[in-house]
This record gives sequence, structure tokens and C-alpha cells, in this order.
Amino acid sequence: MRVGPVEFGGPGFVVMAGPCAVEGAEQVQHAASVVAAAGAHVLRGGVFKPRTSPYAFQGMGEPGLHVLAEAGKRHGMPIISEVMEQAQIPLMEESTDILQVGARNMQNYSLLRALGKVRKPVLLKRGLAATLQEWLLAAEYILDGGNEAVMLCERGIRTFETELRNTLDLAAVAWAKQRTHLPVIVDPSHATGDPALILPMSLAAAAAGADGLLIEVHPKPEQAMCDGHQALTPERFETLMRRLPAVLDAVDRHLWRPESPAQVVRAR
Amino acid sequence: MRVGPVEFGGPGFVVMAGPCAVEGAEQVQHAASVVAAAGAHVLRGGVFKPRTSPYAFQGMGEPGLHVLAEAGKRHGMPIISEVMEQAQIPLMEESTDILQVGARNMQNYSLLRALGKVRKPVLLKRGLAATLQEWLLAAEYILDGGNEAVMLCERGIRTFETELRNTLDLAAVAWAKQRTHLPVIVDPSHATGDPALILPMSLAAAAAGADGLLIEVHPKPEQAMCDGHQALTPERFETLMRRLPAVLDAVDRHLWRPESPAQVVRAR
Amino acid sequence: MRVGPVEFGGPGFVVMAGPCAVEGAEQVQHAASVVAAAGAHVLRGGVFKPRTSPYAFQGMGEPGLHVLAEAGKRHGMPIISEVMEQAQIPLMEESTDILQVGARNMQNYSLLRALGKVRKPVLLKRGLAATLQEWLLAAEYILDGGNEAVMLCERGIRTFETELRNTLDLAAVAWAKQRTHLPVIVDPSHATGDPALILPMSLAAAAAGADGLLIEVHPKPEQAMCDGHQALTPERFETLMRRLPAVLDAVDRHLWRPESPAQVVRAR
Amino acid sequence: MRVGPVEFGGPGFVVMAGPCAVEGAEQVQHAASVVAAAGAHVLRGGVFKPRTSPYAFQGMGEPGLHVLAEAGKRHGMPIISEVMEQAQIPLMEESTDILQVGARNMQNYSLLRALGKVRKPVLLKRGLAATLQEWLLAAEYILDGGNEAVMLCERGIRTFETELRNTLDLAAVAWAKQRTHLPVIVDPSHATGDPALILPMSLAAAAAGADGLLIEVHPKPEQAMCDGHQALTPERFETLMRRLPAVLDAVDRHLWRPESPAQVVRAR
Repeated sequence: MRVGPVEFGGPGFVVMAGPCAVEGAEQVQHAASVVAAAGAHVLRGGVFKPRTSPYAFQGMGEPGLHVLAEAGKRHGMPIISEVMEQAQIPLMEESTDILQVGARNMQNYSLLRALGKVRKPVLLKRGLAATLQEWLLAAEYILDGGNEAVMLCERGIRTFETELRNTLDLAAVAWAKQRTHLPVIVDPSHATGDPALILPMSLAAAAAGADGLLIEVHPKPEQAMCDGHQALTPERFETLMRRLPAVLDAVDRHLWRPESPAQVVRAR
Repeated sequence: MRVGPVEFGGPGFVVMAGPCAVEGAEQVQHAASVVAAAGAHVLRGGVFKPRTSPYAFQGMGEPGLHVLAEAGKRHGMPIISEVMEQAQIPLMEESTDILQVGARNMQNYSLLRALGKVRKPVLLKRGLAATLQEWLLAAEYILDGGNEAVMLCERGIRTFETELRNTLDLAAVAWAKQRTHLPVIVDPSHATGDPALILPMSLAAAAAGADGLLIEVHPKPEQAMCDGHQALTPERFETLMRRLPAVLDAVDRHLWRPESPAQVVRAR
Repeated sequence: MRVGPVEFGGPGFVVMAGPCAVEGAEQVQHAASVVAAAGAHVLRGGVFKPRTSPYAFQGMGEPGLHVLAEAGKRHGMPIISEVMEQAQIPLMEESTDILQVGARNMQNYSLLRALGKVRKPVLLKRGLAATLQEWLLAAEYILDGGNEAVMLCERGIRTFETELRNTLDLAAVAWAKQRTHLPVIVDPSHATGDPALILPMSLAAAAAGADGLLIEVHPKPEQAMCDGHQALTPERFETLMRRLPAVLDAVDRHLWRPESPAQVVRAR
Repeated sequence: MRVGPVEFGGPGFVVMAGPCAVEGAEQVQHAASVVAAAGAHVLRGGVFKPRTSPYAFQGMGEPGLHVLAEAGKRHGMPIISEVMEQAQIPLMEESTDILQVGARNMQNYSLLRALGKVRKPVLLKRGLAATLQEWLLAAEYILDGGNEAVMLCERGIRTFETELRNTLDLAAVAWAKQRTHLPVIVDPSHATGDPALILPMSLAAAAAGADGLLIEVHPKPEQAMCDGHQALTPERFETLMRRLPAVLDAVDRHLWRPESPAQVVRAR
């Protein structure tokens, strides 16, 4: 599966990073230059934000999308952003490279069916309380519509434990890799909600066989309008990117890098 | 809150019953006459069915809605049916009396916002893993849009227990009654998935302070196209309707019945 | 199943009430006179307290047991108290009328086997995350040892929901009543942790078919050394005892009362 | 923390392996020679088995312990086995090198207090539904008694997901490493219940910062009297032991190996 030059699901491991929410041009440009310099491959940022409360910041909407696209272009990175409803699909399909379905919408079947008609890859987050079978069947709604470019994303499930935001289910990653050909991505930011745990959980995800990461990075987490408590600082993100290669190498993977097509061998 | 002649949230307890899915005119007419004869107030039936698998029966769609409306009309019962996406709203608003939001869509905020503009009552089912605060905040999306006719519906939550389909959380009903003015309905069919438990759980719901029930009744459960294993037979439903009044009386409630407006006193 | 004069599992519904922990003679005598006057049948009170932290109050131990027994005797009430380990069994068997096994010890099989040799009834609380099958199999450890006087007690399970202390699973009560001949008791105090919910949940438990209640009542909840936040005041307990009979009557039950043996008809 | 020559919690990573249950001398000797040859450091095997049903195989008891000790001695491996009750402590303290507390007994405080007086290390498994705070506080019961040699063991928690036996919570491992000085061990066998997932989850545990593994290996899993479905074959275990070093090296760790004391540097 290719997104621009980037290949998902091959031996190369893909890192998608950026702010939880697009807040403005300066913030996104800053975040983009930080994650690009550290080696991230795809720029993430939300412009339509599903928020538990109707009174919380709901995202910048379309103007934010242009800001995100501009930042991605400047740094040569494809972009990923969340689509919340069918009416947003034409805009998202035109402006983004990967359309993300959030955990709350994993069983929004009308949206999934509509995404089956889209010609861009879709990243499908696992629902907070979705079983593994329900997750694969939700992907099937998109695949059945004709869009074969589906990535699964484990982002933590809801359990009795309250010390952390959610419980990261890495066995789900290994389980899914053994049962499907779809790339499986891990989002350690939402899964733990704790910046101090994102490094060890990212290394563990790589060792477990994940195909990539989706990570929140904010130039100034303490000023973020959304989920700042779980965003990595630029320094922490750089540390993560320095430490990933050794673990990937131990499982015969590597950070994705451009290669001539002939060299792309699906080694696993 | 009134739906046709029926009042929700007052001293009268409302029973909504009918098949899980509308399968055809004969089935719905049969179910309608059974539940009407037993004393149900509202006819339920799904025409747009959110199913875990894309290959399962997805509902009759619009033709089913006309079948349901016709049956309701014949028996003098308002009807309730599930809306799955914004595009269905105009049709549903015209043809049904109560629009139901399913558990999977409890945090489909785009749908909730659109329902805030509708002039018909909305029954909002609690999500499978929704906290009580998230449930009330989801209702707030509809209320904030200007539609004050929102009913909450507890239908069981997902826990570790697998003997029953879900875990009915009746404390959630009492909790919600103490914190909001919204009617709170209980769906013991989805909550237990076991016809033998629907009678005791319905009585318990009444004792806990619920304002009504949403129950699946099928003339021939073994032939149902959807969730037949949890549907009540007509006989079991009649037994339930005979046993409810005594429990309601014990908590100063009664099965809803038409009264002259002057007699409607909110006693609680 | 008889405990002194009190019969469990027949048409009579049994209320066991008293403080979470025995704190001293005055507190227990006060609590005993309150619950006896309101109509409770059995006096509860913990002297060996399993506490999450080793630095929390661990109970009065043996001296507390004598205080509890004295209070029970004065008011003509059998007593129930928790046994935490095998070494306590001889003392508990001699001094109490019902031995309680706490949720944390539901799968302490060595303790259960030892209780199979005891000639006093055992109340077995469901573990925080015990499936229904595991609960019945834990009871089987006691029954298999030769002690047939086992009561099951549902006291709430641990779920993702954090607004309340636990999630009361009343369907488990109805389920267990349909599958075993053992009396099933409900503990709404631990299940909700909220005094405002204990009344509705007690009425719901009665409607669901429970055989009795185990409730925390403290003369001065704000001064309690353990779980005071969930204890009923004497006033709230009296209200509960006044409201229970109507619901019990609606399901062909009644508060237990002494009868001549000829009148005891197992009506269900 | 030392167990015989083996050091836990330092840079060396410790592998404990062997059958779920001791079934006889031949089986244990076979298992011991297999895991020793593959490089395991400690031999595991249960002789007192806490089983959900009283009618399931309950372990060989004391004779099994001698069989296990003999096998450990022959292969130069310390042994670990589960203690279920206080009465077993003297025997276990004499015959084993590490006393294991099972998940069901994590809050058996009487047992924990008694283990605080023991002069051998204790491995404390996390309860099925224990929060992280409860886990640490359970360890505190042992530490408070004077036994500082406590290891924590994450073995999967109970969640709504039923595809796998439990949900392995690796973030709990990283969280515990950041908050305590206690070694943290991972049991991927009970956590997943699926031999095909034990390799990736073991590598992930190593990457997440765990100090060791506790793994079920059976010479003939299909003939095992207990949990054979989750035991590794000798071949799979050898593969695991071959693949661990590279991941450990990537996080500056290595499989534990005997060193002269001067070389043992706590590098982290």
C-alpha cells in the first residue's frame, strides 16, 4: 500500500506524527518542521475533532485542512486527518492523503460504506470497546465497497484500569498481523495518555510487529488546545526516532526510506 | 414530553414493543396486533439495521418504514425506528414519531448535531462502553442544537461477562433520573439477550425508576431475520404486561393511559 | 436454609444490615438498635477487614467479634461477619451465625475448601471480575466439601464505568435464581458506593428476584472508620424498610417474619 | 535481587520456563532439559494448582515439589512454584527458590502478610482486574512485613475481549518500572493463551522494559493436564530464545549470564 512515495505494510516502518489538532499555521509549520527533521514520514493533524462535550474546541474545519496541506507540501510529507461524516468526504479526498476514521466512528457503517468508494487510503481506528472480530468486520465494510487500501490502527481499549487513558492491546496487533494482509498501525499517544510511556510502548509496538506509529507531537504541549497532556515534546520525539531503528533491526525491519521499486522486497 | 397522545417522563410508564427488524407487512401487522392487544403504547421496528458484518441482513430500508407506519396507524400507536445517518433524517422525521440513535452511533456527533434540528423526539441509546458522563454529554449535542425532546436509553454495557449479551446497568438509570429531567428508558432485550431474563429485568427497571421499556417481540422468534434469540414470544410479552402494574404501583407509577390533561400531575 | 429462626431462600425476604466495620461497643449497639427497630433480620459488621492498603484500618479483630455477638444477642438478631483466612474459622464458626467470604477471596480455594467443613452457613460474594460460571464453581468448592448452606451475594462488578464504585449486575441475580437452589443476596452498598442509589437498587433487587439484602448502615456515616461514604443513615434505612414491602408484594414475596413452621410454604 | 546465582532487575534479562503443572518425573525432567538447553535460567512448575472447578486436576502437591526440585538441581536451575495458602509456606520456603502468588490470590492479604516473613523471593502476579495501584499496594503488604524480595508479574487482565485469554497490559510494565525498584516480569502464556502470540509478545515485553519472562513450555502440549493449549513446544521456545537477544540488545539489555560480581553494573 502506497501513499505518495511511502509504502505501508512492507519491511519499512512508517511514522506519522504531528499535533492532535490543527490550531493555526504557525503551530503546524513548527510541528511539521520538527517531525520532518526527526525523520517522520507522514504529517498528522485533526481539523474536524470529535469531542465528548459539544462545548469543547471542535477543530478549525476546512481552513485548518489547507494549513495542514501546505505544511505537508513544504516538508514533502503526505498528510493524514480525520473524517467525521460523509459530507466531508469530497473535501478530505481532495486535500488529504490518508483519511482517518476515529474510534467513536468505527461502527458508523454509513460512513464506512461511503469510504469504500473513496480512492484514498483509510486508517481505521479500533473502537474503544470493539472486539477483534468487530474491528476486522468494520474494515470489511470499506473493503467490500471496493477500497482495498485500509490500515488498521490499535489505539488502546477501555478497561477498568484508570491510571492510564486506555489499555494498549499489543497482542491485538500481532493477532491482526497473523490474520490479515492489512497494515497495522499503533497510536501510543491515545493508548497511554502519558508522554513518559510513549517511548517504551513505541519500541514494544515495533517489536510486536506493528507496521507503523501514529504519534502526537506538539511544539509546546502545555499550550495545546486539545490533548496537550499526551503530546510529545520535540525532544522526546527525537529521542524516540533515534531509538526505534535498533529495535526494528532486531525484528528485521527498518524505518521506511525511499528505495527504487526493484529493491522493495516484502521480506516477511 | 409527548409523542402523539403518549406522555414520557410523567407518572405513566411507557412500553415500546415490536420486532427487532421489519421483515414484511405480515410480520409487522402480526407483531403490532399482539403488542397492542397486550397494552403496549408505541410500536418499534428497525428498517435501517447497523450490523457488525456487512454481509448480514441490513434491513428493508424505506419500504419497511411504510410498512411500520401503516401498522402503527392501524393500531393507533406511534412508531419508533432507528436513524443511522444524516441523509435518512428527512424521511425519518416525516414517517416516524420517535427517532432512535443506536449504541454504535452514540458518539456520532455529526448525526447528533443534525438531530438537534429535528422537531421529533430522539431516543439516545447509551454506547456499549460509554461512561455516564459521556452519555449525558452526547445528549447535550442534541439539546444544544435546539431539540429538547431527548430520551435516554440504557441497553446494557460491555463487560468481561460473556454469559449474557451485555450487562444491564440499572444503577445508571437511577443515577440519570437524579441528574437530568430527561426520560430514561430501559431496553432489556439487548441488555440480556435472553428471553428468560427480560421479565425480571423489566420489573427491576420499573422498580429502579425507569420511565419505560423498549422490548423486542416477535410473533415467531425462531424465524426472525435478526436477534430472534432475544425476542419475546407474544405469550411472554403478555405475561410481562400483566405483571408490570403491581411493581409500578409499588413505586407510585402506573402503565401510561390516556387522561384528560388536567389529570396529568407530575407526582414525583 | 435457616439461620437461627430466619429462613433464607423461601418467600420471606431477609435484610442484613449494620456497619461496614465494628469500631466499638457503643457504635455497634447504636447501629444494632437502629436496624432492629427498622425491621432488619440479621446484624452485619466486619472485624477482619481486607483493605487495599496495609496501612489502612484493618479491623478490631477478635474483640470486635464479641462486641458484635453481644449486640446481636441483645436485639435477637443472628450475626454475619467476614472470614479472611483458615486460621480464623474456629473462632468465626463459634461466634457468628453466617460466615462471609469477601469478593477478593472468592477464588481463595483453600479457604473455600475449609469452609466446606464448617457447620454454619456461608455467604459467598461474587469476585470483582468473576464470571457467573466462576461464581457458581466457587460455591461448588464449598458444597463439594459437604456444607450445603451456601448463599450467593452479588455486590457489583468492576467495569470501565467510574462514576459509581462498581456496576450492580442484577441480571446475574435472576440468572443465578434460574440455575441454582441457593439463596441470592444483593449488596447495594458496595455495588454503588452511593447512598442515594441504595434505595432504588434495593427495590430493583427485590423486583429482580433476590432473596435478601446486605446493607451498610452507620449511626454517623461521616465518622465511620471504613466506607462511611456509602453507609445509609438510620433515616434512609428506615425509608428503605418502609418501601420494600410494596415491591416484594408485587412479586409475591414479603419481608421475612417468624411463622409457625406449618405456615412456611415455599411458594415459588 | 538474587535467586541463587541469578540476578533479577539488573541489566540481565531472566527467563523462567517449564510446564504449567508438574505431572510426573519424566515430564518435568524432559521439560527441564529442553528449557535448560535453550538457555532458560529458572525452572517453573505448579504443584498446588488453583483451578476454577473443584473437579479439575488440582496438582500433584508435595510429591510434585520434590520432582521439580530434583529436576532443577540436575540442570542447575533455581525453581519457582505457586503457594496457595499459609500452611504451605514452610514446605515451599524450604523446597523452592521463588514463591509465586497467583492472580486469584493477589488480594489474599493473610497470605501476603505471611509471605512478608519469608526469607525467599516472592513473585506477585497482578490480579485479573487489579488496578495498578492495587497491585503495588498488594506488594506493599509483603514489603511491609520485612521481605524486600518482591517481583511483580503482569499476566494479562480481564477485559471485554474474548478472542484471547486475557489482555496483556505492557504499559503496566513500563508504568511499574518508572514507579518502583521492583523487578517486573511478564507472563505471555496466561496473557494470550495462544502459542502463536507468545513470541511477538515476549519480544514486545523485552522492548517495553520488562526484567524477565515466565513462560509455559511443555514437551508434549497436546498431552498436558493443564493449559496445554497455551504451552510452547520445545521448538517454539528455542526460537524465542534465539530471537530475544537482538531485541534486548536494542534496549541495552541482554539475557542474564553469570558474571563475576565486579562486572555487574546496574546500567539503567
